[in-house]
Amino acid sequence: MQFQLTADYIRKVTQLIAKKDGNALRKLLHDIHFADIAELLEELNSKEATFLIKSLESEITSEALMELDEDVREKILKRLSPEEIAQELEEMDTDDAADVVAELDDHIQKQVIEKIEDEEHASDIVELLTYDEDTAGALMAKELVQVKETWTVAGCVREMRRQAENVTRVHSIYVTDKDGKLKGRLSLKDLLTASAKTHISEVYIPKVDYVTVDTEDEEVARIMQKYDLEAIPVVDENRVLVGRITIDDIVDFIKDEAEKDYQMAAGITEDVEADDSIKELVKARLPWLIIALIGGFISVWVLSGFNTALTEHAVLFFFTPLIAATAGNVGVQSSAIIVQAIANDTLKGSTWKRLLKEVSLSLINGLVLASILLIVLKLFLSKLIPGMDMLVGITVAISLISVIIVASLIGTFVPIFLNKRGIDPAVATGPFITTSNDIFGIFIFFFIAKIILGF
Amino acid sequence: MQFQLTADYIRKVTQLIAKKDGNALRKLLHDIHFADIAELLEELNSKEATFLIKSLESEITSEALMELDEDVREKILKRLSPEEIAQELEEMDTDDAADVVAELDDHIQKQVIEKIEDEEHASDIVELLTYDEDTAGALMAKELVQVKETWTVAGCVREMRRQAENVTRVHSIYVTDKDGKLKGRLSLKDLLTASAKTHISEVYIPKVDYVTVDTEDEEVARIMQKYDLEAIPVVDENRVLVGRITIDDIVDFIKDEAEKDYQMAAGITEDVEADDSIKELVKARLPWLIIALIGGFISVWVLSGFNTALTEHAVLFFFTPLIAATAGNVGVQSSAIIVQAIANDTLKGSTWKRLLKEVSLSLINGLVLASILLIVLKLFLSKLIPGMDMLVGITVAISLISVIIVASLIGTFVPIFLNKRGIDPAVATGPFITTSNDIFGIFIFFFIAKIILGF
Repeated sequence: MQFQLTADYIRKVTQLIAKKDGNALRKLLHDIHFADIAELLEELNSKEATFLIKSLESEITSEALMELDEDVREKILKRLSPEEIAQELEEMDTDDAADVVAELDDHIQKQVIEKIEDEEHASDIVELLTYDEDTAGALMAKELVQVKETWTVAGCVREMRRQAENVTRVHSIYVTDKDGKLKGRLSLKDLLTASAKTHISEVYIPKVDYVTVDTEDEEVARIMQKYDLEAIPVVDENRVLVGRITIDDIVDFIKDEAEKDYQMAAGITEDVEADDSIKELVKARLPWLIIALIGGFISVWVLSGFNTALTEHAVLFFFTPLIAATAGNVGVQSSAIIVQAIANDTLKGSTWKRLLKEVSLSLINGLVLASILLIVLKLFLSKLIPGMDMLVGITVAISLISVIIVASLIGTFVPIFLNKRGIDPAVATGPFITTSNDIFGIFIFFFIAKIILGF
Repeated sequence: MQFQLTADYIRKVTQLIAKKDGNALRKLLHDIHFADIAELLEELNSKEATFLIKSLESEITSEALMELDEDVREKILKRLSPEEIAQELEEMDTDDAADVVAELDDHIQKQVIEKIEDEEHASDIVELLTYDEDTAGALMAKELVQVKETWTVAGCVREMRRQAENVTRVHSIYVTDKDGKLKGRLSLKDLLTASAKTHISEVYIPKVDYVTVDTEDEEVARIMQKYDLEAIPVVDENRVLVGRITIDDIVDFIKDEAEKDYQMAAGITEDVEADDSIKELVKARLPWLIIALIGGFISVWVLSGFNTALTEHAVLFFFTPLIAATAGNVGVQSSAIIVQAIANDTLKGSTWKRLLKEVSLSLINGLVLASILLIVLKLFLSKLIPGMDMLVGITVAISLISVIIVASLIGTFVPIFLNKRGIDPAVATGPFITTSNDIFGIFIFFFIAKIILGF
């Protein structure tokens, strides 16, 4: 059943494009799903992709365009005339169309919108462009099926047939009063099972979840997930129904958010993919590396401050990577758990209690690791390493426990603190937490060593 | 609109539970959404939660139970009799019911299933339990609306009214032949707009995406996302329609997978949450720390092998954390990008090309970082640190570039290699990659230093 995009297939397509044989292309790609067309487009250069877009029906290509990576789409749109772009937009739902228009250069935007023949569609797109990014208004589409509470089921079905033409998928039918204010909802199932003469006011469900145009997108995702909604109506400040958001947009949103958090934890500052250009990848990766390098300088400076240890206890310097790595790992573990709890909105209770729990947990982990360390030192390392005596071993073990406790406290506290300040706590994961914990870890280690060994 | 679970509200509920006042509880919680009931249950102890479950209608509590964390649900179910559990199962969709039964102890399972009054429901649950975990069969539900291609639209609507009673949400109507083999689908919209006498065979859409019972869950999620499906039919080896999977289950699956990858990258081996017990958290966090500790021992051993550097070039030891941290950070960046590309199925093209790209990228990053390093050394560190001459600076700079290249190659290659071997590449992120890169980084650094400085 599944379509497989083979190298052979791509070769066949590029050959037809080279021959400018639109008819053969249409025949070859007939019946191929738009998501597969999108995959194919990503394999072509932008000139070939543009030819393909122009050859196929905009009913298909408009959907395929939406599946493309933003930069691939941008390159193709640059090669299309305002008329051609407008044709694609006509076929799109308003939310997708508005997204595409927003990506265009300002002077093109106006030209494109003027070329859209369906005036209602055009004005819907313009309306959607006015909402702030990251709000329900920017996420919603204008396409929905709306009926008045005073209608009968039969009248409703008639009207729905008319409206449904513009709506790809009917999730729910929204019931409004004569002023367009949201009153409730009606499922297609209810409509199927009610008799034709019944008034809508008798069968609709008045309990309906909704969001307003300025609800934040994260909140929309949270509500839709929590209440298992497949679509949610959007109202303006007067509770007038203005749009709806469907679950497929939220699936994309959830994925994007999860990927962003993951990349942030991995020290990648911009949304990049493996296939992006070297320039983009450098731009995404270099900033954190520079910050980490600065952290590295601080650790060099801290270590040089303990250079008196070099004469009698140089062996301590063999342990700095071990201590630093443990501090970093523990910090990342702690912060990841907190960042996830914040993202899922499950972080409740007092911060103090949480820090206390973290200390107990770290004490257990620390004691286990310190015991392993002492056994390994006794059995192997003391024989391998000159100058390795039991006092040094005890110093390393005590430091390890202290470092684990401090690192876990930092890893727990920093994201909670950032979140309270309104900063995305995910920045506190990854390189930031490893770098700062490296420095703290090394300092604590040598500070304890100085007290115990005296240098 | 949104329900807020306040401390006050919880207190009110626990007081009513203490008084065993079921009527007042039902009144208080009337009209509260099951997802909010679930939140409330998570705040109660298992005895209180069980009383609450018993007081409310199973129509509500069965849904609330499904929203609970698995361990909270388990504790509550332990306090319910087989009859009471069966009552909850009667209200659940078969997929949820099968999940709950699978969580029960073996000897309870049979008792519970025997107590389910609806025999078809019971046998459906038993059927679902036979499928392998991580397959479409284990993910699907038996509830669906199925019509025969020979029926008329009117007959179809009649039959649908009957079937729809058991189906919470109608996504699609599936059309089968007389043997139950999947032929196509019909949208509710199509049904609304077709005339009553039309035969289904004239209006159904024969192009339908489907999966088989043994399709892997990851593949199901990929297909549903790629083709923007809200539900997908599941067929057996003879193409007989046996169930359907809806997008809400896939949303949960996507979230779980993303969280698992994130936790893996953060060195957390089991699915834990901030509110889990200390024991569970230790179990999830300790294993990676032990592995990292073993890596730490190796780095101690590597460093001790270069102890001849201590006499004249001890300053090198101040730089080990800087080198190790950079190696770790670069490795995590590289592996995260590859792991994400593998998860999204966008990793194409030859591995050699990808490694070459990674080398070019690392060379740029390395040159930038090395330049910053040399400037900082010249301006500040050479004055602060005794024994810090320009030759040491050049040694560190060359090592930094080499380490960045090697670390990025390891970070790129290891996940690709693991994936080809059928191992989840996400294990290659986080502590694993930082630990191994720490060791390689330190070794490369001292090896280069030995060549340049000669000790």
